[in-house]
Amino acid sequence: MDLSLFTVSIEAFEVVGHTLTLGYAVMAASLLYFILTKNSNMPKYRMSSVLSVVVMVSALLLLYTQKQSWTAAYAFDATAGKYVIREGAELFTNGFRYLNWMIDVPMLLIQILFVAGIAGVAFRKYLFQFSVSGVLMIITGYIGQFYEPGRVAENMTAWLVWGFISTVFFVWVLVLITRVIREGKKNMAGSKAKGIFGAILPLFYVSWFLYPGAYLMPALMSLGVVDYEFAIVAQQLTYTAADIGSKVIYGAMLNISSTILSNEQGFSE
Amino acid sequence: MDLSLFTVSIEAFEVVGHTLTLGYAVMAASLLYFILTKNSNMPKYRMSSVLSVVVMVSALLLLYTQKQSWTAAYAFDATAGKYVIREGAELFTNGFRYLNWMIDVPMLLIQILFVAGIAGVAFRKYLFQFSVSGVLMIITGYIGQFYEPGRVAENMTAWLVWGFISTVFFVWVLVLITRVIREGKKNMAGSKAKGIFGAILPLFYVSWFLYPGAYLMPALMSLGVVDYEFAIVAQQLTYTAADIGSKVIYGAMLNISSTILSNEQGFSE
Repeated sequence: MDLSLFTVSIEAFEVVGHTLTLGYAVMAASLLYFILTKNSNMPKYRMSSVLSVVVMVSALLLLYTQKQSWTAAYAFDATAGKYVIREGAELFTNGFRYLNWMIDVPMLLIQILFVAGIAGVAFRKYLFQFSVSGVLMIITGYIGQFYEPGRVAENMTAWLVWGFISTVFFVWVLVLITRVIREGKKNMAGSKAKGIFGAILPLFYVSWFLYPGAYLMPALMSLGVVDYEFAIVAQQLTYTAADIGSKVIYGAMLNISSTILSNEQGFSE
Repeated sequence: MDLSLFTVSIEAFEVVGHTLTLGYAVMAASLLYFILTKNSNMPKYRMSSVLSVVVMVSALLLLYTQKQSWTAAYAFDATAGKYVIREGAELFTNGFRYLNWMIDVPMLLIQILFVAGIAGVAFRKYLFQFSVSGVLMIITGYIGQFYEPGRVAENMTAWLVWGFISTVFFVWVLVLITRVIREGKKNMAGSKAKGIFGAILPLFYVSWFLYPGAYLMPALMSLGVVDYEFAIVAQQLTYTAADIGSKVIYGAMLNISSTILSNEQGFSE
């Protein structure tokens, strides 16, 4: 196989390295934010903060590993003035992301139930449906990414078919979360938290739709619209933006909603 | 010896790396979960959370080391399009797991006694029996794995004999844990915690039986049923699933049981 096709410019190499470093620094910083603000909320809301902490630890480790994988995969070639695949090194792989999402996705979906005030039978029903849809979405996407254009084993059909199956579960997640947010808003009738809690719905849609976008980005390379370098840089930027939106901003909005609800119920730290 | 037999495809190499990374990220994330939820339980149950923390730290370090051992052992060979044993590098070894289980196994078995409400003479009897059976199970398994097929010193007879001795202690552990869970359920008569606490028994059986399965997996390679690559990938996946089940999910179920019991006794954080 000819690895010489997989070169990246100095700028592209650095942008990806910087972006991944931003990513894990955001997770590390937010980890402390969620720990330190947990007790501003009533005990019944605190599990949302605990699950944000779980997600931050997982995302921190995964993005750090992604960064190490990126750095190890390339070496600077002074003759070409570019970064080339480092001989004998591990190839860069996005797969760390997918497997870590097996932790994050169920946790992100379950944590909102505590703030939305969903309990009893409905809680267990959502817990089960979120876990099943989330895990199946990720496993099928994980299998698909092995066939991504630009990888040694690239196979456009397999990549698209697995991506499509994953999308079916993705749509199921969107249907469920829309329902949960609607129920949560009903439970917050008359509360000032309703506004910020309701704003989670558009945030969720925007940040979660970035993931299938990033998955599909290498298709532009196959179609000759963009080159390898552009596809890989755009993919890493998109994944990082999606991670910050769907994990950190989402968790912070849930946390702020919980604090408002706690204060309205006479709780103070 | 001919190391060229021990090649792994890109996909197999990556699946193992991703899985081990998932493994230590789960342990790190759960470490924070057990710390942050400890005080939701009455003091008499908190030692269970503390022992979960001890197990998480041990498992986190061990799986991180397993991941480093895996990565260091192979190098990408562009000509073959595969990962091959890296020249002069340390060989991959599973032995880290066994020695760390000397910490985990006694802790996992002892922590349930606090939630099951077993005290006094019975507590000390189980503490002693769990420690002896657990440690002997691990030491004999550790000796056995040095003779595993696919290792340089492979010796089928020694591997099976030590594996058999280890299994005797394993059965002793299963007998003891079944008794403890039965007694715990009796102590929880009338409590809502009885359901989730009782569900620990099937979880324990399923997750613990994965270990002898993973130990024996290389036998399929010796019998020519599967190749080196399949055996090693299947073994790492099985060990990781077993670790998550027997340490994290088990600990979370004990923690949730403790919280329910604490609330029923009028405790709130």
